[in-house]
Amino acid sequence: MPDKPPMPDGPSPALVFDTLFAYQRTAALRAAIELDLFRAIGEGPADAASLARGCQASERGIRILCDFLTIIGLLSKADGRYAHTPTSAIFLDPRSPASVASTARFLGDPLLQEPFNRLAEIVRAGRTVLPGQGSVEPENPAWVEFAHSMAPMMGPMAAPLGVIALAGKRGPVSVLDIAAGHGLFGIEIAKQNPEARIVALDWASVLAVASANARRAGVESRFETKAGSAFEVDFAGPHDIVLLTNFLHHFDPPTCISLLRKVRAALKPGGRVAALEFVPNEDRVSPPMSASFSLTMLATTAAGDAYTFRELEGMYREAGFVDIAGHPVPTGPHTVVVGHAA
Amino acid sequence: MPDKPPMPDGPSPALVFDTLFAYQRTAALRAAIELDLFRAIGEGPADAASLARGCQASERGIRILCDFLTIIGLLSKADGRYAHTPTSAIFLDPRSPASVASTARFLGDPLLQEPFNRLAEIVRAGRTVLPGQGSVEPENPAWVEFAHSMAPMMGPMAAPLGVIALAGKRGPVSVLDIAAGHGLFGIEIAKQNPEARIVALDWASVLAVASANARRAGVESRFETKAGSAFEVDFAGPHDIVLLTNFLHHFDPPTCISLLRKVRAALKPGGRVAALEFVPNEDRVSPPMSASFSLTMLATTAAGDAYTFRELEGMYREAGFVDIAGHPVPTGPHTVVVGHAA
Repeated sequence: MPDKPPMPDGPSPALVFDTLFAYQRTAALRAAIELDLFRAIGEGPADAASLARGCQASERGIRILCDFLTIIGLLSKADGRYAHTPTSAIFLDPRSPASVASTARFLGDPLLQEPFNRLAEIVRAGRTVLPGQGSVEPENPAWVEFAHSMAPMMGPMAAPLGVIALAGKRGPVSVLDIAAGHGLFGIEIAKQNPEARIVALDWASVLAVASANARRAGVESRFETKAGSAFEVDFAGPHDIVLLTNFLHHFDPPTCISLLRKVRAALKPGGRVAALEFVPNEDRVSPPMSASFSLTMLATTAAGDAYTFRELEGMYREAGFVDIAGHPVPTGPHTVVVGHAA
Repeated sequence: MPDKPPMPDGPSPALVFDTLFAYQRTAALRAAIELDLFRAIGEGPADAASLARGCQASERGIRILCDFLTIIGLLSKADGRYAHTPTSAIFLDPRSPASVASTARFLGDPLLQEPFNRLAEIVRAGRTVLPGQGSVEPENPAWVEFAHSMAPMMGPMAAPLGVIALAGKRGPVSVLDIAAGHGLFGIEIAKQNPEARIVALDWASVLAVASANARRAGVESRFETKAGSAFEVDFAGPHDIVLLTNFLHHFDPPTCISLLRKVRAALKPGGRVAALEFVPNEDRVSPPMSASFSLTMLATTAAGDAYTFRELEGMYREAGFVDIAGHPVPTGPHTVVVGHAA
């Protein structure tokens, strides 16, 4: 028992308790998305009783959930009626073109989340408690979910990534999209350059999602697929551009360097690799979203990390790349790191 | 894919992603407490390598965990060395008398946390997925953990609660402490009034913790125990004061009223009941800690809630209490609601 209780205007344990209860925020938002609550709210301010009818849920449950979402800034409440905040209207109502609600499915995938229940053990061991390479074990179904549900987070970064990767290059361009996932990055290049041909590489089950997206975008005639592991399949080529999006962070530096060497060997002279990465500052504690991504890599991989620009530059150089530069993406937390084959 | 990507200065999905990742904050803090990291940090600023040795953990794990704790404000970092923030020094270093680190054990108890993995289902049904009455099923071992580990959160509120409950009353006082838990509230009254006699009521396994605390406080000769359910055991009496701490919120209003009637019947004329509760404002969305507690009651009980003062006042009145008043506790998020037997 404390000798002296904390005083109201002095230091407070509020941040500690807020952190110990933070998991409830994630649970509340996921539940609301699963119940399609943000769609119901979008039909106009409503009280708990009518939202409960709309969501086929209990009034007690909806009232407490909506109050909680109001407290954490994801709904507003006036006179007992709940309404969207600007954030929930744009980013959580499924009718909004910018909605990121679907990302809750991948971000809440048990594969990514359950290791956090054993985080002390992971910190002791220095690697995920998942077997083998963790989340990047072959044919992991989580990546099908990634391809399905993460497009709304990644989509806004596709256009700037395409501009950076193409760097104004017109005419026929061969693009290898490694770990293509939803395929949106290669598809965007195919849209920006009508003579670009894309080879999307990923597990077969994931490529089915990318191919469907390519058809939907009308670029399927210039969109090929290659199923398998980036470490094993022949990259063919030579290519003008290789995309490496959200990939390097899963591996240790020697593995990244060896993959980057394979990438360089598949590029034409002067060709470029463009990696999309969470790149923290050299202090490794800013900016928050990029820097905190390291914890996900600790929990779910054997040896991955969110690498600083200096670390990535070192790996690129080691693999024989030159003219290495980082381009922060204005529409997302990521940075595109470009290197050129000599 | 959004028609128009969010602009850097416009609305941002940052709050949404922060919420979807919030569970990682809880996991990181719990892991750090389990690894005794805040004690190691308290021995002086140190780099990841020496902290890893001190915590018998991997350097990769410690470095990433410490960076994450720095990002969320629970450590500081300069020149690659980690140090306490004022908050972590006072509230997380186990050598600090005000440390609340042990509360992570109760707050992270699977009984309380696992229902949040099924929160959509709970909102649909309007009650916990736990069987029966949920967390208040008889002899639930979570309450032994509560008694052991929550004293640092509850302790600072004991002195003000004692003052409010005693209201200056000197001489012999009989106090019934319902759901005594760690026993600190009754013990504090025994300390404030040397002629007070306490009867602590809880499950037998929980009372063992309270009795040990009473011995440690030197009040064991005036500290009796009564094992069983508050709804079933004879309250004996008549008592001058009945404490009902952190109890009413687990039950629906009819159950609370029936218990309050039983309490009133066990009080002397003019005797008082003092309930320690999270009491949100009438808007039910402020203050944040009290208002958000409703979600824990939704997830873990059949029909509990964080009741507003008006609701509690109504239940007290219905049970025959008069002169009902709420006293916010200056040293914690709780309010003491006092009522008098006519």
